[in-house]
Amino acid sequence: MYEYDGLCKNIHGHSYNLHVTLKGEPKKLPGHPKDGMVMDFSELKKIVKEQIVNRFDHALMVNSMVPESQIELIRKTTDRVIIVDFQPTSENIVAYIAQILQQHLPGDVSLFSIRLYETVTSYAEWFITDN
Amino acid sequence: MYEYDGLCKNIHGHSYNLHVTLKGEPKKLPGHPKDGMVMDFSELKKIVKEQIVNRFDHALMVNSMVPESQIELIRKTTDRVIIVDFQPTSENIVAYIAQILQQHLPGDVSLFSIRLYETVTSYAEWFITDN
Amino acid sequence: MYEYDGLCKNIHGHSYNLHVTLKGEPKKLPGHPKDGMVMDFSELKKIVKEQIVNRFDHALMVNSMVPESQIELIRKTTDRVIIVDFQPTSENIVAYIAQILQQHLPGDVSLFSIRLYETVTSYAEWFITDN
Repeated sequence: MYEYDGLCKNIHGHSYNLHVTLKGEPKKLPGHPKDGMVMDFSELKKIVKEQIVNRFDHALMVNSMVPESQIELIRKTTDRVIIVDFQPTSENIVAYIAQILQQHLPGDVSLFSIRLYETVTSYAEWFITDN
Repeated sequence: MYEYDGLCKNIHGHSYNLHVTLKGEPKKLPGHPKDGMVMDFSELKKIVKEQIVNRFDHALMVNSMVPESQIELIRKTTDRVIIVDFQPTSENIVAYIAQILQQHLPGDVSLFSIRLYETVTSYAEWFITDN
Repeated sequence: MYEYDGLCKNIHGHSYNLHVTLKGEPKKLPGHPKDGMVMDFSELKKIVKEQIVNRFDHALMVNSMVPESQIELIRKTTDRVIIVDFQPTSENIVAYIAQILQQHLPGDVSLFSIRLYETVTSYAEWFITDN
């Protein structure tokens, strides 16, 4: 993290744990394959996997404010560099994930909350009601 | 699940995990056995056990739309068949549980939310505020 | 617990588990050490450790209604007695913790909720919105 005053200024990794909660009415369509579901869990998991996990897993998120020379050095150590225009704190990452997921969910459900565990004991949570 | 377009159309089991949250004021009755409690945890657990766990544990919930001939076959394999007039998704089951519990809670507390984990990673949640 | 009608009337211990959730805007201060954070997790943990864990860990909370003679006996068994003017239920303790933390958090964040697990399956939760 750019200019952070602790150990986290160094490149480091997390085993993030992501909880996505949707809001919606269970479909009332007797006989329909998705009857009684807000959204099929397997469909939601597919979207999260494609849009979030596959994109960010084992990647290194770097603040665009980091000097270009340092970014060049980082690129020599990993192919999976993602430049973002924010400090990659849990708070900012969870809002970024919310933004991405909102674009990929079907129209009849909405995002309710996203909780991102940075460690087992620390998480950031985003609520639609605050946004 | 009747007419579902995935593996779950077959008879299958879950190790559901149920979280019940009440809302209320801690009693302010100094000297009273339940002073400082919204509701004694042991009383709540007793109600949940009697009304939900004992009723649904190791039972098979079957949508009433399933043809009678099939239900007959199912009855030969288990004594614990529960016919319900909805598709037994987590979303519908959690609403059904809410309905039952609301009838059995004392008048000075109210149901706040019920979360039903179908698996460790998938849950449906019901909030009184949405109902 | 004073006058409780169950086993918990006896002196007993819990491995409480405390979840503290704050609410706030991630700071938008590019280049600042705390950019992108609502509050540095390590700062929050420090406050919780100093104000709550250090104070209550391995201590015995006793309702001030307990007769003085009994409190004297208790003091002979442990140095860490905390006399409180409420029944030490999870519900009351969580509200007490909320009160303490609110006095020690920086002005730009607010307490959102506190969840106190008394056991793995029983918790009391406090929300700012209810208070």
